[in-house]
Amino acid sequence: MNAKELEIQFSEFLQDNLNLDLTRGKPCPEQLDLSNGLDGILQGDYRLEDGGDARNYGGLLGIPEARRLGSTILGVDAAQVMAAGNSSLTLMFNYVSSMMPAWRHEQENKKSAIKFLCPVPGYDRHFTICEHLGIEMLPVKFLDTGPDMTEIETLVKADPMIKGVWCVPKYSNPTGHTYHAETVARFARLASLAGPNFRLFWDNAYALHDLTKPGSQLENLMTLADSCDNQDSVIMIASTSKVTFAGAGVAFLGSSTSNLKHFEAYLASQTIGYDKVNQLRHARFFENPDSLQNHMAKHREIIAPKFALVEQKLSQLAGLNVISWTQPNGGYFVSVDTHPGLARETISLAAQAGVKLTPAGATYPLRSDPDDKNIRIAPTFPDMIELEKALDVLVCCLQLALVRSQH
Amino acid sequence: MNAKELEIQFSEFLQDNLNLDLTRGKPCPEQLDLSNGLDGILQGDYRLEDGGDARNYGGLLGIPEARRLGSTILGVDAAQVMAAGNSSLTLMFNYVSSMMPAWRHEQENKKSAIKFLCPVPGYDRHFTICEHLGIEMLPVKFLDTGPDMTEIETLVKADPMIKGVWCVPKYSNPTGHTYHAETVARFARLASLAGPNFRLFWDNAYALHDLTKPGSQLENLMTLADSCDNQDSVIMIASTSKVTFAGAGVAFLGSSTSNLKHFEAYLASQTIGYDKVNQLRHARFFENPDSLQNHMAKHREIIAPKFALVEQKLSQLAGLNVISWTQPNGGYFVSVDTHPGLARETISLAAQAGVKLTPAGATYPLRSDPDDKNIRIAPTFPDMIELEKALDVLVCCLQLALVRSQH
Repeated sequence: MNAKELEIQFSEFLQDNLNLDLTRGKPCPEQLDLSNGLDGILQGDYRLEDGGDARNYGGLLGIPEARRLGSTILGVDAAQVMAAGNSSLTLMFNYVSSMMPAWRHEQENKKSAIKFLCPVPGYDRHFTICEHLGIEMLPVKFLDTGPDMTEIETLVKADPMIKGVWCVPKYSNPTGHTYHAETVARFARLASLAGPNFRLFWDNAYALHDLTKPGSQLENLMTLADSCDNQDSVIMIASTSKVTFAGAGVAFLGSSTSNLKHFEAYLASQTIGYDKVNQLRHARFFENPDSLQNHMAKHREIIAPKFALVEQKLSQLAGLNVISWTQPNGGYFVSVDTHPGLARETISLAAQAGVKLTPAGATYPLRSDPDDKNIRIAPTFPDMIELEKALDVLVCCLQLALVRSQH
Repeated sequence: MNAKELEIQFSEFLQDNLNLDLTRGKPCPEQLDLSNGLDGILQGDYRLEDGGDARNYGGLLGIPEARRLGSTILGVDAAQVMAAGNSSLTLMFNYVSSMMPAWRHEQENKKSAIKFLCPVPGYDRHFTICEHLGIEMLPVKFLDTGPDMTEIETLVKADPMIKGVWCVPKYSNPTGHTYHAETVARFARLASLAGPNFRLFWDNAYALHDLTKPGSQLENLMTLADSCDNQDSVIMIASTSKVTFAGAGVAFLGSSTSNLKHFEAYLASQTIGYDKVNQLRHARFFENPDSLQNHMAKHREIIAPKFALVEQKLSQLAGLNVISWTQPNGGYFVSVDTHPGLARETISLAAQAGVKLTPAGATYPLRSDPDDKNIRIAPTFPDMIELEKALDVLVCCLQLALVRSQH
């Protein structure tokens, strides 16, 4: 389409009074229906395998059944897993908070700020935790193999006040990267180069979320870290929020038993324990060893066509060369890079036409995309008809922002 | 019994190899059974009255149905209620944390520590929050009418760095006090005497937990505070942990809408929202206006005989004059005061005989009971047979500690 045709198409969209939303990685109702069996699954049997009662207080690290489920998802021993509440974000916030006294102590001694490395584009809520706690963020770029490990190693060696890295190692949010084996191996060794109390925040939110069969393979960070005695640097995170119910599932933290002990003591001043009844529901729901895989296959059937539609619509832009996008094998997002300087304008045009996109810059620390080029698309929630409409608007706006910028 | 008879009885208890626990306010299995209908109550209907889906993300202040339930329990408008996760302790910890930046700012300006008033004996986990956050605690004694308000007013007027008070206004933990009307009225006015950002932590954990019929009446702090424009000082807390499932219920925070707005913004960096599915279960379970009262009447039937047994057993000590105890109209505890200097010894003797009591000093800030006299008894969890045994041991140990101290 030429500039004039694009302007006409855009003005037509303006008249459609659309109200569509591609902002957040939310499951659609059909996905949520897959887990309706959770409510009522206990059938009056609240007895835990250790003899405890799921309905009463006690047990900050979670019930054995749920810790085992977490162990399956994270790929570490059940003794290294904490089963917690409904939010992996809360777990990460709390874990980072639990480290702050030790890090602040160093900060005062060294008169230097606490810093985290942030592969970009990344997950906005990781960055918000740092912002909230006053942690400085250093962006690191992605290569095809995952974050640029040479850059990371150089930074970590040079500054012992770099205390953490945010990683979404499988189907990274939003780029869809799965870290290559050599990248994971270098992460496992990273603490050996770093200052004391260095932590890898390994947010495996999409561990089970393949869009292809077989999905991408991720090496086991804990096993590799163990072999170079860096197990205390590993903080693995997962949840069932995009497996069962979003915001009503169970979150897991995997780490060394000594880290868990420290974390448990930290949490004791703010909670007696997490919802063990909901942990038990989840453990029973996935009791059968194959059930988790079968369940995720049903998710795939529902959302794979949505990702295919994104690819089909965006491929109309292939000839332009200045717009690129990811073709993820899993996860919840497609990441689009516009010509530099056009993300904000594209998102603003789409908003005028009633299509909400994740705010420009959201995938960067402090909401600041230096090239103003990244747009994150979350296609799972809308139905196919709404999604098609929203993508048509997006494709129009991407081109319109470009042609307007050239005039 | 004389000293020799007590020693003989004690040595007999030692041979019984008991393993009994009166430490924590835990509901017993029969109480928990009352709420088994929660699991499965949704019958596949997750639709909220505002059109939302309980199974998906969103809504940090909770679902309208659950906020209304909280409004019934707390006695404030639903718009002033946040329905949250499974733990009121977490809510309190988070609310206090949300105020720390403002309080710390004053601390730096005034070079004076942040302080909280702590009516004693009180709830150990309130004190732990202060300890964790570095807040200095000032104990305040109880009168028959509740905390000594003249002492509180004098302290608050003299030191603007007193930023909070911990209150369990109905069936106080552990003394069973319900604050008199005049006490509540003076609390409502208290912020007018205090420095900026002063908060009353009004932990109404036992709002519904009458042991007598009718139960004690508590004035509505919010109404009174509203009338003297102190509504922002009111932070009300409740949960269903001792109504439905302990640790798998819903916690509520009641406050001014401007406080809620500030708190919501604070929480956004650590969570997307709380478990709305469990909120909906609770709202449906107590949908019928009478259901909550009827449900609590069933709790009363189960636990009132346990409190009667405590009274019956302790009344054997009436002739000694140096041991006193409370006769609460509700709540979860009986508070025993030994002759000064004997609480630790009594608890240690009971432990030797296999009866666990709350550690000496636990009801005081920093676990330090200046008179070493307070013992908290939690009689709800054991069955009547175990409870009787445990109380026999306690009654023996209370006397034995006394007679041994006199020789």
